[in-house]
Amino acid sequence: MTENQKDAGKNDAGKEAVLPPKSEFSEWFNSIIDIAQIMDVRYPVKGLYVWYPFGFGIRKRVYNIIRDVMDNSGHEETLFPLLIPETEFMKEADHIKGFEDEVFWVTHGGVTPLDIRLALRPTSETAIYPMYKLWVRSHADLPLKLYQVVNTFRHETKHTRPLIRLREITSFKEAHTVHATWEDAENQVDEAVGLYADIYRRLSVPFLISKRPDWDKFPGGDYTIALDTIMPDGKTLQIGTAHHLGTNFAKTYDIMYENADGAQEYANQTCYGISERSIAAVISVHGDDKGLVLPPSVAPVQIVVIPVLFKDTTKAVMDACENVVSALKERGLRVEMDASDLRPGAKYYKWELKGSCLRIEIGPRDLEKNSAVLVRRDKGEKQFVSLNGIGETVLSELKKMGDDLYGKAEEKMKAMITPCETPEEVAAVIGSGKGVAEISWCGRDACGMKIEEETNAGILGTPYAETAVRSGKCPVCGQESEQKIYIAKMY
Amino acid sequence: MTENQKDAGKNDAGKEAVLPPKSEFSEWFNSIIDIAQIMDVRYPVKGLYVWYPFGFGIRKRVYNIIRDVMDNSGHEETLFPLLIPETEFMKEADHIKGFEDEVFWVTHGGVTPLDIRLALRPTSETAIYPMYKLWVRSHADLPLKLYQVVNTFRHETKHTRPLIRLREITSFKEAHTVHATWEDAENQVDEAVGLYADIYRRLSVPFLISKRPDWDKFPGGDYTIALDTIMPDGKTLQIGTAHHLGTNFAKTYDIMYENADGAQEYANQTCYGISERSIAAVISVHGDDKGLVLPPSVAPVQIVVIPVLFKDTTKAVMDACENVVSALKERGLRVEMDASDLRPGAKYYKWELKGSCLRIEIGPRDLEKNSAVLVRRDKGEKQFVSLNGIGETVLSELKKMGDDLYGKAEEKMKAMITPCETPEEVAAVIGSGKGVAEISWCGRDACGMKIEEETNAGILGTPYAETAVRSGKCPVCGQESEQKIYIAKMY
Repeated sequence: MTENQKDAGKNDAGKEAVLPPKSEFSEWFNSIIDIAQIMDVRYPVKGLYVWYPFGFGIRKRVYNIIRDVMDNSGHEETLFPLLIPETEFMKEADHIKGFEDEVFWVTHGGVTPLDIRLALRPTSETAIYPMYKLWVRSHADLPLKLYQVVNTFRHETKHTRPLIRLREITSFKEAHTVHATWEDAENQVDEAVGLYADIYRRLSVPFLISKRPDWDKFPGGDYTIALDTIMPDGKTLQIGTAHHLGTNFAKTYDIMYENADGAQEYANQTCYGISERSIAAVISVHGDDKGLVLPPSVAPVQIVVIPVLFKDTTKAVMDACENVVSALKERGLRVEMDASDLRPGAKYYKWELKGSCLRIEIGPRDLEKNSAVLVRRDKGEKQFVSLNGIGETVLSELKKMGDDLYGKAEEKMKAMITPCETPEEVAAVIGSGKGVAEISWCGRDACGMKIEEETNAGILGTPYAETAVRSGKCPVCGQESEQKIYIAKMY
Repeated sequence: MTENQKDAGKNDAGKEAVLPPKSEFSEWFNSIIDIAQIMDVRYPVKGLYVWYPFGFGIRKRVYNIIRDVMDNSGHEETLFPLLIPETEFMKEADHIKGFEDEVFWVTHGGVTPLDIRLALRPTSETAIYPMYKLWVRSHADLPLKLYQVVNTFRHETKHTRPLIRLREITSFKEAHTVHATWEDAENQVDEAVGLYADIYRRLSVPFLISKRPDWDKFPGGDYTIALDTIMPDGKTLQIGTAHHLGTNFAKTYDIMYENADGAQEYANQTCYGISERSIAAVISVHGDDKGLVLPPSVAPVQIVVIPVLFKDTTKAVMDACENVVSALKERGLRVEMDASDLRPGAKYYKWELKGSCLRIEIGPRDLEKNSAVLVRRDKGEKQFVSLNGIGETVLSELKKMGDDLYGKAEEKMKAMITPCETPEEVAAVIGSGKGVAEISWCGRDACGMKIEEETNAGILGTPYAETAVRSGKCPVCGQESEQKIYIAKMY
């Protein structure tokens, strides 16, 4: 990155850019994306953005975690083509309906019109399943569990914004699995939800898990389970989905296997995905008025070491700082020394903006006491720590910080869920930006849609695999029900 | 991967597929891609292929090496959009000419025609440089050294084949740098060539470095340096290029910086790329009649441990094998145990096909002597090694194997270069599939093109940064020259 760009907190004209307070969340988000150099929004096509190297550094680490979780649960990584022939794309009727308005079409190669138009994948079912037809033969081939991390495309007509609503989703992790029975696929959906929960815990991002209502499930699937987090403005962000596809796609693409008795049966399938919304969640849930607060698991710079220099003590202090840097690097930590000419205040400002987890300052007085000042990004309080064993101290602080971030964010999220009795209460909760409302529901589509209409909000769904039940009455039909739904404004 | 697919060496009908001898290189290549499960060629669009998980495992490791080399030489990874508006794409005249015949165009979003057509990047100059215009301000911003690993697209009308000639290049690593002076950019081209040489040494792939003739340079650049390797059939494969772009693109995209005296100057630029042809080279250069021979740096399975089981000794042998597997895993090695029911011969066949570097067999007799049998994939000879310190033995054998592969391949490549005096000799060398011919050349374009015409082959260029000179005469004009050129049939 260039020096101009490296100087976080300065915009292109070199002037200090000011981050709005996080209470003005929408402005804060747009601003942090820019001045912390996550993405450059000035690319000359709507909904397409450029990853700055710093932003890419976060992306890389988030996706390392995602890949790690996938690889360690029996998934294998693969890569399918971007371009899907119209003939394959148009086979599954419900699926087409869900996507046809937003598919980009390639119609020409050079100056020659193509015989068959090619879709830029909006998702890869129709690219992958014709191959699964060739790969799946026998029950011994199952389960088949593959995933890929790819760019996907949607011609969004709504307002686009970086990481959240894009025309090129640059980082779609999509898994596609094949199973013998409907129950096996159901278990796979449960596994997927568990893996996504693991991923988000490692990102210190809390979540709600809901079974989406039937009218909001994946086009062509049997049912959809989704993870949502609550953003600071009270709206929810869908950060992961898992779909049970039943035999719907298998019937369309003729994916059959020979069962143990030698008979041919249609396969059951699932698919599940996470996009760079995972990064939007990390940024939005933890950030504060000073900038990014990044979990140690994904911060490009976990520790910054700042020497406090005076003329006659410079060398001793620099030596001590360098020793600390080496000790931390040896432990595999991502550490930078900032010995630049900036004023201390400007250094703090810069590294706080960039979400460096720990700041370590060493001056001549600290050195006399064989100690250093340590400041955690999320707490901002100074601690005096011994230089002996500083590697262990840092490791333990980073661990604590990851846990604390999750704990704090989860508590905050829970406080943003309000039990309600009537649609009017729901509308009031949501209208005031307080977050998610919960209310009883009889389970009938008609009543659910009526609630959405009356509250001018969307139903996330029923809490998934939750044991605590809620007794109440459906606010539309009045029927007694132990089922509840989450309702929210959604991104 | 499914059981069917896991069973390397069997095609989809479950029958043993037979690998043609490597002397029939073209058939061998197509066959190994299929039966070793690198890619599935049955995707229903010409020139688009599917990475099998096993092939993807090789790809991942090759690109880990590429990223490692880039990251450790001051490059930062980034990511730019795939879609380039026609207005930007059409700005640089020479560049357009070089690519317009092979660009895929997106013309519709949903059912709506787009206002401005969008190109699928064939390469990213025209996506990146409008942003560089915004990012580069001052000499202090330079050098700017970024890279990305992306899918790029070319509407190839020639015969397509996996890894070599594709419509979706799935794995294009492209770097784009900006410098103050022409000389700084020239030095960057040298650095790039050096880095690519490092990458190929780590892949045990030998190469020739040539300055491409002027009529074959990158469209819009000042000059092009290329790395080629010689394939078993004598044709060359271009496996990396580095281009000096001068100020050509800077003038088109208005990339200027303020120099130390406060004056505005056009920036000098370079770009350089490597694609999955790097993987085609690894496979083609080292493979043999039995299948893949993979350098330890990229083999998905570096070691396979095979227990030789008899009824009364099974447990002791299995324990010994498991100990070896643990010892090797602890050292971070990629090791598999094959305790399947296959006959030993079938196991050898399978793991040789997949390019596992070392095979370790342990039977009751070996155990009595506290030893194991070790067979290196590239040599095929049995060695008896002690079970004590087997971790060190394996590490040292893997290291030796990587070095030996490179040495052997380099020797072979050098023997495929024949010095010639006349175009007829050149044509004979190339026509017989012996490899590359070298001949004197005066340096004039007209003479060079005449040589190409008379030999029905292509000029790779003049050897780059080579100190040994060759005295001779240009076979066309007869002028004395110390310059030589490489001529070859090229992929």
